[in-house]
Amino acid sequence: MADYDDSNIFAKILRGEIPSIRLYEDDDAIAVMDVMPQAPGHVLVIPRAPSRNLLDADPAVLSKALPIVQKMARAVKAAFDADGVYIAQFNEPAAGQTVFHLHFHVVPRHEGVELKRHSGQMEDMDVLKANAEKILAALKS
Amino acid sequence: MADYDDSNIFAKILRGEIPSIRLYEDDDAIAVMDVMPQAPGHVLVIPRAPSRNLLDADPAVLSKALPIVQKMARAVKAAFDADGVYIAQFNEPAAGQTVFHLHFHVVPRHEGVELKRHSGQMEDMDVLKANAEKILAALKS
Repeated sequence: MADYDDSNIFAKILRGEIPSIRLYEDDDAIAVMDVMPQAPGHVLVIPRAPSRNLLDADPAVLSKALPIVQKMARAVKAAFDADGVYIAQFNEPAAGQTVFHLHFHVVPRHEGVELKRHSGQMEDMDVLKANAEKILAALKS
Repeated sequence: MADYDDSNIFAKILRGEIPSIRLYEDDDAIAVMDVMPQAPGHVLVIPRAPSRNLLDADPAVLSKALPIVQKMARAVKAAFDADGVYIAQFNEPAAGQTVFHLHFHVVPRHEGVELKRHSGQMEDMDVLKANAEKILAALKS
């Protein structure tokens, strides 16, 4: 497995070098809108600590991450009146990983609606912002 | 969301009422072979604490679960000389959940090999046992 490279896009988002639509942040992780969503309301939880993926992560980082994933899962389910929530975490390209900083996908699911392809098409920024507003409202309630 | 029902198959496995091929256990969780694997070496991590899925789980249970998922991910990657590992957790039927006790899927991936369908075909018990031996060896090394 390759080493961690801090030029990846999520490291840049964490450093504030490129913009993101943030939904949540604390000392351990941030949550942002996925700009190539598999469904409306697709969120990424990104621990701040550098690791390539789950395989090389500090277990203490993992322990802190999953309750944040839960918080976002509940919020997207409420915000989009979803029937379910899909959680995924990809390790290495063979498993679908495209950005090499540990992250968790949180995707609202509706009965009978297929997911779009992972890392497919860039969503319109206004749509992403409107969806973020719904999630932020759910996080507050 | 429906309440937790302790007649589900994983609750029965946890209580020892039905057999499973166990790979790991501690006070917080067990890891067993998925009997309908999406790829050879597909493992399930099942926290002992009763919850329907991630949405109603105790955050403390989640914190303890993910390091065990990591341990199993490293073991299946080594055991099957995998190129990657897919981690998934499904909440409610719309997201693919078929057993209503919190669990995490840990699936080794190889470049160019598609996953089989989730909850597809029952694997031969001798194949599962042979694959379990490989994972147990990796856990020891």
